[in-house]
Amino acid sequence: MKTLELELGERSYPIHIGSRLIDQAELYKKHIKGSFTAVVTNETVAPLYADRVVKTLESLGQKVRLVVLPDGEVYKTWETLQKIFDALLESGADRKSTLVALGGGVIGDMTGFAAACYMRGIRFIQVPTTLLSQVDSSVGGKTGINHPLGKNMVGAFYQPQAVIADLDTLQTLPPKELAAGLAEVIKHGAIADANFFQWLEGNIDSLNACDPKAMEHAVLRSCEIKSNVVAQDEKEGGVRATLNFGHTFGHAIEAGMGYGEWLHGEAVGCGMVMAADLSVRVGQLTTDEAERLKKLVAALKLPTVPPRLGLERYMDLMSVDKKAEGGEVRYILLNGIGRSTIKAVDDQLVAQTLEATGAV
Amino acid sequence: MKTLELELGERSYPIHIGSRLIDQAELYKKHIKGSFTAVVTNETVAPLYADRVVKTLESLGQKVRLVVLPDGEVYKTWETLQKIFDALLESGADRKSTLVALGGGVIGDMTGFAAACYMRGIRFIQVPTTLLSQVDSSVGGKTGINHPLGKNMVGAFYQPQAVIADLDTLQTLPPKELAAGLAEVIKHGAIADANFFQWLEGNIDSLNACDPKAMEHAVLRSCEIKSNVVAQDEKEGGVRATLNFGHTFGHAIEAGMGYGEWLHGEAVGCGMVMAADLSVRVGQLTTDEAERLKKLVAALKLPTVPPRLGLERYMDLMSVDKKAEGGEVRYILLNGIGRSTIKAVDDQLVAQTLEATGAV
Repeated sequence: MKTLELELGERSYPIHIGSRLIDQAELYKKHIKGSFTAVVTNETVAPLYADRVVKTLESLGQKVRLVVLPDGEVYKTWETLQKIFDALLESGADRKSTLVALGGGVIGDMTGFAAACYMRGIRFIQVPTTLLSQVDSSVGGKTGINHPLGKNMVGAFYQPQAVIADLDTLQTLPPKELAAGLAEVIKHGAIADANFFQWLEGNIDSLNACDPKAMEHAVLRSCEIKSNVVAQDEKEGGVRATLNFGHTFGHAIEAGMGYGEWLHGEAVGCGMVMAADLSVRVGQLTTDEAERLKKLVAALKLPTVPPRLGLERYMDLMSVDKKAEGGEVRYILLNGIGRSTIKAVDDQLVAQTLEATGAV
Repeated sequence: MKTLELELGERSYPIHIGSRLIDQAELYKKHIKGSFTAVVTNETVAPLYADRVVKTLESLGQKVRLVVLPDGEVYKTWETLQKIFDALLESGADRKSTLVALGGGVIGDMTGFAAACYMRGIRFIQVPTTLLSQVDSSVGGKTGINHPLGKNMVGAFYQPQAVIADLDTLQTLPPKELAAGLAEVIKHGAIADANFFQWLEGNIDSLNACDPKAMEHAVLRSCEIKSNVVAQDEKEGGVRATLNFGHTFGHAIEAGMGYGEWLHGEAVGCGMVMAADLSVRVGQLTTDEAERLKKLVAALKLPTVPPRLGLERYMDLMSVDKKAEGGEVRYILLNGIGRSTIKAVDDQLVAQTLEATGAV
């Protein structure tokens, strides 16, 4: 097991990465204060891992309630969140109770937001079981739900007590979900670490095969890069926004197709290809570098061609993105592979990218 | 105008108290960063003050959207909150936008919670127009909504940029709302300032008549006491809980009768009488002191006899109160007039109080 620490003063917490972690009682023990814990998961993950987590918590003397939500981004709504609150109140959960988020990004985001809001804030532990959540969404404290008019529009910055990333759970992932997670792994290399990017290019087969050694390195390095950025800028006043590389286009794809049609990671994979194209137009990236990114995205089985939603629709969808500020959309652009910047870009260049990538 | 500062490090903010404040553009100006502000208010307050606030903000160059919600505690729900999010997204509000809460405690709590959650947190300004919100709910950053199983069960600690308490707005308050606000004023004296309590006893007629001079002192001293407590313990790990004096019984009354039947302040007024009775039984307060409190509550036109909901129902309702921790309900008790403590109390003593005060 490897352990990183995300340094955020009194809100610092450990990220444990390794094999057979979900039944290690000691990993949970010091983060639990009260006598009640709710394990929040979904219908897909529950039959695989819920029992082991519940038994582990019970071995610590916890009264445990299992809350099983429907599976999918389309359920990342207030109505589903309400089921968590209902269960907590029915069980008499108090301010010392703990939530455990067992699942992917949707479960982590909703459980974290429930923890942020229940009685104005209780503890929670992230137990991510997908690659996407292990390398990205479980780390950094972004929680929330979707609104019909925009993704993650309602939420909180709320840090977990700990992240327990059990690499064994990746072995049960459907190939599409594995690829979706790899999108965020590529992103970390692209924005912050040219060597890591190169390592990814050299390990395509192992990554696609979910080889444990490759996965360990991919998760560890991703968590290091992300922790480092979040520690500098917890609430996204500046550098943290670079983690949204590919997300402005990606969110537009997700929202435009209807949440759940494209996996988040798929949309981000394609969004990165689009953002790289835009970076070339702005003059910050060579066409060769953009091509390398596109090739890696494709090699890791992610889409590189966006849905044809039309110019106006894309522009509309991107303008509601959270990164739109004071009326102008700011894009995360690559400054060569391994470096990134945040910039407002002329609409005309964006239109050219949409056209060139097949979006219009 | 008097200005207090609530000292919370980088989250510190001013509380302005005085006459004709709601149209003073300078009071808003430095707390607004973006170009869009939503004024959130209710159907009762809108015709009285919305126009003045909107015009003042427009004079600062803001694009302003007025959001008018239905009036009453019964609407302090997710459904109503959703109307705020809908309006913000429809208007293209971004992370630099500002919310102004114009109204009483319900508007302040919901608007503050909307600000805490919208895009994971935007600015907001409290413009309380009721006595209760001026002396209590607008100060200290408690925001939230109710759940059918408990009051304020879903929310956030989220501080405003400023509180602008215009004393003139108190002149339009219905007498019941004035009395409800005075309950929290009494509370501040009872838990923290014997001299202020005595001043209240000596100014009953002026207070009932909403005399401007008396109101100024009542609001100012209440805000001082509350600010002082919140500055020591923002997230209610300790001393802040003393501000809940009367609230454990009070919340049980509110929930038991159905939200909106009793005004919050009425329930707190009666709850303080019950908590004083309990303080006597625990041996911390003399019967004379409890009698003084009851007399003051009655003189300020607040109920002193709880609804007869029965023993089991009260015990049930109080056990879901947020202050119930690890299975035991902790009560705020007086330690003489002007001092308070937090204690777990034997159920039998609580039962005696419920019987003696007419609750069972």
